[in-house]
Order: sequence, then C-alpha cells, then structure tokens
Amino acid sequence: MNYKMMGRFVGKILMVEAVFMVPAMLISLWEKEYESVLGFFWSIVATAAIAGLLLAACRGTKNKFYAREGLACVGLSWIVMSLLGAIPFCISGAIPSYIDAFFEIVSGFTTTGASILPSVEGLPKGILYWRSFSHWLGGMGVLVFLLAITSVGRSDNGFTMHLLRAESPGPNVGKLVPRMRQTAGILYLLYILLTVVNVIFLLIGRMPLFDAVCTAFGTAGTGGFGIKNDSIAGYTPYIQNVCTVFMLLFGVNFSCYYFLLIRNFKSVFRDEELRMYFGIAAGSIALITLNLRGVYETLGEALRHASFQVASIMTTTGFATADFDLWPGFSKAVLLCLMVVGASAGSTGGGFKCGRLLLVIKSLRRSVRQVVHPQRVQAVRSNGQPVDEKVLQNTNAYLAAYAIIIGVSFLLISIDGFSITTNFSAVLACFNNIGPGFEMVGPTCNFSGYSVFSKLVLIMDMLAGRLEIFPILILFSRSTWTRR
Amino acid sequence: MNYKMMGRFVGKILMVEAVFMVPAMLISLWEKEYESVLGFFWSIVATAAIAGLLLAACRGTKNKFYAREGLACVGLSWIVMSLLGAIPFCISGAIPSYIDAFFEIVSGFTTTGASILPSVEGLPKGILYWRSFSHWLGGMGVLVFLLAITSVGRSDNGFTMHLLRAESPGPNVGKLVPRMRQTAGILYLLYILLTVVNVIFLLIGRMPLFDAVCTAFGTAGTGGFGIKNDSIAGYTPYIQNVCTVFMLLFGVNFSCYYFLLIRNFKSVFRDEELRMYFGIAAGSIALITLNLRGVYETLGEALRHASFQVASIMTTTGFATADFDLWPGFSKAVLLCLMVVGASAGSTGGGFKCGRLLLVIKSLRRSVRQVVHPQRVQAVRSNGQPVDEKVLQNTNAYLAAYAIIIGVSFLLISIDGFSITTNFSAVLACFNNIGPGFEMVGPTCNFSGYSVFSKLVLIMDMLAGRLEIFPILILFSRSTWTRR
Repeated sequence: MNYKMMGRFVGKILMVEAVFMVPAMLISLWEKEYESVLGFFWSIVATAAIAGLLLAACRGTKNKFYAREGLACVGLSWIVMSLLGAIPFCISGAIPSYIDAFFEIVSGFTTTGASILPSVEGLPKGILYWRSFSHWLGGMGVLVFLLAITSVGRSDNGFTMHLLRAESPGPNVGKLVPRMRQTAGILYLLYILLTVVNVIFLLIGRMPLFDAVCTAFGTAGTGGFGIKNDSIAGYTPYIQNVCTVFMLLFGVNFSCYYFLLIRNFKSVFRDEELRMYFGIAAGSIALITLNLRGVYETLGEALRHASFQVASIMTTTGFATADFDLWPGFSKAVLLCLMVVGASAGSTGGGFKCGRLLLVIKSLRRSVRQVVHPQRVQAVRSNGQPVDEKVLQNTNAYLAAYAIIIGVSFLLISIDGFSITTNFSAVLACFNNIGPGFEMVGPTCNFSGYSVFSKLVLIMDMLAGRLEIFPILILFSRSTWTRR
Repeated sequence: MNYKMMGRFVGKILMVEAVFMVPAMLISLWEKEYESVLGFFWSIVATAAIAGLLLAACRGTKNKFYAREGLACVGLSWIVMSLLGAIPFCISGAIPSYIDAFFEIVSGFTTTGASILPSVEGLPKGILYWRSFSHWLGGMGVLVFLLAITSVGRSDNGFTMHLLRAESPGPNVGKLVPRMRQTAGILYLLYILLTVVNVIFLLIGRMPLFDAVCTAFGTAGTGGFGIKNDSIAGYTPYIQNVCTVFMLLFGVNFSCYYFLLIRNFKSVFRDEELRMYFGIAAGSIALITLNLRGVYETLGEALRHASFQVASIMTTTGFATADFDLWPGFSKAVLLCLMVVGASAGSTGGGFKCGRLLLVIKSLRRSVRQVVHPQRVQAVRSNGQPVDEKVLQNTNAYLAAYAIIIGVSFLLISIDGFSITTNFSAVLACFNNIGPGFEMVGPTCNFSGYSVFSKLVLIMDMLAGRLEIFPILILFSRSTWTRR
C-alpha cells in the first residue's frame, strides 16, 4: 500500500473540509450564536491541523497508485471527514452525544437525511446551514470537487479515474471529455448552475433566502435534511412543486445535462436509463394518485402529494409533504420498491440505480434466451452498444453484496427489538441514502430510538450505500492490508 | 418445439397422478366419506382420460429434445397436475371454490404448506391424506419418480438430465451413478426409507398411525400441512423433537445419505454446504433460545420451541409448535432471514439454498480480491474443486430473478391493502415454499383473506419457487414458443 500518497490525499480532503466550515462559522457569527461559532472554530482548527500534519508527514515521491488504494482511500476519507465534521454539533451543544452527532453528519455527507433529532426548528442557524451544506458537498462528492480544483499527485488519468470511479454512483463511469480533471470540473459547474436555478425558483415563491439555500442544498444533494419539523409540508404548493421538479432533475445522470449543453440531443433521447427513470416515476405517481383518491379531497391534491413523495423517495432525497406512513398499503408498497430502485447512475441520488436494474434485467433475459437457443452468441446491449462482460459481472456482484448487506444489517439492528417493518425500512432508508422509512422511522419520526450499536450499523450502511459498497468492503478486507 | 414428446410426457405424469389418487379414494371409502369417494373417483376418471388421450394423440417418432423443451415440459406438467389435483377438494365440498382448491393443491405439490383453510380438523380423512400426500409426491418430484420407475423416451441420458435438472433443487445436479435413471431410483429409495423411519419414530411416541403417516409425509416433503388446527403444538415434546430432527434431516442434500451408505464418509464431512447448513441452524437456535429466555418458563422449553421453529422455517417445512409471530423482534428477524436462506441443494427443502448462498458469497469475495490483486487469476472453489464459471453465472442470474420476482409479487399483492410485513412475509413464505409468514399470514392464520388475483400471484410464486424459477420463466417466455 502506498501509505504516503493515501495520507497526502486524506490531508487534502480535510483541508477542503476545513475551508468549507468557514461559511458556517460566519453565519453563526452573524446570527450571534456564539456557542456554534466556538464549535466551528475548534473544528476548523482541529481539521486544518490534522490536514497539515498529514500533508507534511506524507511528502514523498512514490506516485504508483492502484485501484485498491484508490478505493480504500475514498472509504477512509469519508470516515475521517465525518469524524471531524461531527465536532461542531457536539461543541455547540446542538447534539451533545458524539455518536449521535457522527450519525447526523454521516447522514448528511452520504445525503441520507436520516436524523436522530426529534426537532430541528430550535437549532442554531449555523448548525442548520452545516447540516444542509453537508448534503451538497456529499452529493457530487468531495473527491470530485478536489479533482475539479486541483491536480492530485500528477495529471495521471488512471489514478483520478480510480478515485472518480469510487465516488461516483453507477455501474460504469463515463468520461465526458478525455481528461478526468475537466470532466470533474464540468460536473461541478453543472451542479452549481442547477443549484442556483433551484434557489431562484424557490425565491420566486417567496421563500426566505436562508430557507431557499438550505432547501436547495438538500435537493441538489438528494439529501433530505429539512430546516422545519414538518419538512416541506408547511410551504406553499408552488414551492412543493418546485421541489418535486428539482428532486427529479437531480436524480438524472449529469452527463445528460452535458449532452444537452453541447446540443447532442440524440444521446439524451436515446438514453435507456433516462427513459426507465422517468417511466418508473410517472407510473408510480399515477398508481399512487389513483390509490390516494379517497385520502385527499381533490385529485389535484392527491397528485401533488403523490408526485412529491415519489420524487423524494425515488431520488432518495427524503423530504416529505405528507406522512406517507398513514397512506394505504399499496402506496406504501410502491414507495418501498422505489426505495430499492433509486435514481440514475451518475446523479446525486442513491439506491440500486435504474441503470443497474436495467443491466440486471437484461442479463437475466439473456440467461433465459441462452437456455432456449444455446447455440446463439448473445451480448447484452445498452443504448445500442454491447456491454462489457466485466461490467455485467460487477453488476451481479453488486447485487449480491447489496442483498447480503441488507440481510445482515437487518439482523443486527433487530437486536433492539423493534418491528420487522421498522427495521427493514430503516436499513433500506439508510443503505439507499433516503432518510425516512416506515413506522418508527417514518417521515414524522426519527432514528434516536436505536441503540448505539444499531446506530453504528446504520452509519456503516449509509457509507457503504453512498460509496457503492466496494470502497468500504475493500477498506475492511484483510487482503487489502496484507503485504505480498 | 417437440410438442408430441411434451404431450406424451405430460400424459405419463398424469397417469402417475391418477394412480396415486387411488389410495386416497380407498381411505375415503374405508372412512365412509362418500362425497370424498365421489370426488376422487371423478378426478381419477378425468385425469386418466386426459392422460390416455394425450398418450394416444402424441404417439410419434421424433426423439429430439432440448433443454428448453425439458424445462417448459416440467413447468407445464406441474400446472396441469395441480389443475387436476384440485378437483377432489371441490367435488367433496371440502373447499367449494375452485381457485382456493387450486391454491391448496399447488401449496401441497410445491411443499409450501400455505393454506386457505381456517380449520382442518373437520375435513374428511381422505382429503387430509391427499393434502399430506401431495407434499410427499412434490417433495422429491413427480418427474424424478417417473424417471425412477420407467424409461422415458429412450434411455437418453441427456434428456433425463434436462428433466432432472429442472425439477431438482440446487445450483448443479450431481449424478450419483453414471445412469440418471439409477440415480433417480436411489434418491427415491432413500426418500422412502427415511420416511418409513420417521413414521416408526412417531409411532414409538404413541402417535396414531394415520397422524404419523400424514405428519411424516409433511416432514419428508418439507411441506407443512398439518392435520390439526394447532399444527404440531398439541403433540408431546417427544413427538415435537422427532419432527425437529427429521425436518433437519430432510433438509440435507440426499447425496450425503448416499455417500454415507456407500461408506464414503470423507465426502460427507468435507461438504461445505452441509457444514454451513448445520452451522446456520445451530447458530439460529442458540440466538433465538437466548432471545426467548423471558418468554418461556424454562430454558429447555425455549430450546425446544426455538429448535422446532428454526428447523421448520429453515427447511421450509412450515409446521409450528408456537405462534412465533408473538416472539420478540430479534427472533422474528432471524426467522425472516432463515426464510430466505432455506435448506440445502438436492434436498426436499426450498428457499435460496445454502449451497447457492455459499457460491454467491464466494464469488463476491473473489470480486473484492480481484480489485485488490488484479493480476492474479482466481477461481471460485467449492469442496476443493474449482466451480465452472457457467454455474456462477447461473447462480447470479438466479439471485437476480429471485430478487425481481419477490419485488414484483410484493407489489402486486399489496393491491389488497394489507400491511407491509404481511405482504412481504406472504411472498417469502410462498416463493420459498415455507407456508406461514407473519401477522395476517402468521402460523395461527391463513391465506384466505387475499383476493383471487393475489392468490394467483402467490400460486405462480409457489410454482416458480419449487421449480427454481427457470422452468416457469421459460414456459412463459415468448422466445420459447417462436419458431425459427
């Protein structure tokens, strides 16, 4: 293992984090929340100090860097970043218990949005800002950000590719332009642009600026931390609809926006994942609206709540305008399935991803066809192109890891003795980075009832879900750390 | 497609079924249950007539037979066999609705044991016998029986292999002896032998002969239909323990018994699946016993109920001595996980199968190792032998099909509006051929609350689960029926 390079890398990440804590501190200062100011101040000092030490200690020359180091590095960075990012919550007194603060910030960075706080309206504004900003930073990925602004190591495309692959969601990472650094830059520019447009639309609806920025952070990262106890339910229907639209937009593969910008419309319209994504969303909205006829007074109201909740769950955001735990069984079943499906690859959303589901279905259909016509050679095709067998193999391995992790986590948190639906939906909600589940972890409830052990399990689930399992598996795999 | 050969084959299966209905008719006659006698009489006439017509009409010479025909044939046979096997329930008046009768007999043949009957103690004895016998016939497979007693088509090994593969559970079918017909014969002899031993042990516990035979049928086929309303709860602890041991024994790969008989002990002790199977069972029993400390008076009682329920759920039998739906959350979570894991490949039990789980885990570990050491060529090994990549691919395809079918079925039966836990456990209980689930389909309840549509979905799940998905997928796949 190339420890020096790993250390240097984690150091750079922490430096970025320290810088990004400054705006939160300034907001606290402006709002005269002096305990929060102290919290952020000491966190910045600690983070910068550790970053400085790492950068100083890990100066070296070796630049050889393999996939395993890239993956382990990403896993490690996210854990260290969260350990330090939790400090402001503790020092400010907003979340006195460190494990709860750690849960909250992991939930933030992984864009889960599951909270242990029963009420958020009393929190200092600086803390609210930091919670929401963690979504925005985690959404596109802090490593991608680092790649966009700095050249890491050398301008080594293979190396940056390993990192980008580890942090970007989806079965395969497409390069938009030949150089990865430029790709990362384009992704971040699009991300910032869309976020700004989102804020503007919210401001048009007369949302206060602070609310608009925080809500846009939560939407852009498909995170789901709200700044109101009833999430988005208290805002006007216009604002709710704006959120619905932007949640869906942030669940789209970002390369589609790039193709739109360079006027390559054909690639966008042909994209099978995009069609599937909007198809599933539209179908689910229609089914739930029909199922909700009796629940709301008008069909329009049912449609508004159905589309908001579908967009929120499918993109794994986790905002809510209604307590969907009280909805009829069929609507809940549709939402539960959407929890697993998730958003598109290459978006800020989590879950299994539509693109991956498409590959699994196609590869299953091939297996059936192979029995029927054993002589024919059959390739799985995606958007007209044959898919590399390696990608199919990895997708199947991902499904296996996905199922096993859900099973084991479910078993572990069941020790607390809550109901099957609570535990199962809690695991799905954390692992797919959604936020709310059903029953005891429903949209009006929170995760504070779980034991410390269960919280640690769910923290690992959130990280594994956000980083798509392998970086975390590699980080904790014995073979990664054995010298050969 | 070779329609003639398929027709001939289904005809032979139906002939076997007609013959096996005779004992049930004789029992009804002996018990003077004349309505049941009529029911069986007309069913035998109808089944034999259809069989005769098929055999007469499909006389032909073509003997070419491919995998797709074998698989489609198996799927078709099971459906037709169930359609006819449901008739006695209807005519006798035991289950007036035909769709309910169909559900009941599919549940019998597939060894699920899920019932739509709120009470079974009032049923005629002939009907009770037929319910239990359907488990025994379905357990080892009616095609395997046919192969054991008759030469099908020619003594074509490839052809019989296709059939055996379609009906036998597990990722790959091992031949015990070079000729498949002999293998099938050995399997059936072992099956009969173990069933007889089971009956003897039950008789020693002073169980009445009729009860002992029916209970042994349910145990041997890992079915779960009881002849008492409280399943096995009313019998003595001795009888309950006998059932626990025999359920576990019938969940073992039958080739292990063959190896024991030919004194090849090494193969048995080395068998990784066997170790995993007993390891999971022992671990689950220990965990649940600990979790049940407060629920039962003595630790011994907790141990007895824990082992019975673990054996029953893991082998997918479905008998019960306690209402485990009232157990603490952790015990229920363990049982829910066991529902998915299932028994061993090559046993009469259902579920995903320990052997397949082992392959999935091993192939996942290889994927992780491949990232860490990309240069090394790595084969997945089972019992020391490298596993064919084709088997791994099929196992992954199986996992994908498994997950998708569970998701879609869950969604479809949710239209009835019951709770998430009810619907999810109902699908798991039917698809894994277990029987009872949780809440509304718990061990003291039944499936009669579901609509006709949901019952049809669950019927397809039971069939797909018992035949391990592919025969049913092939049967309903368009490409199977298109001429090329």
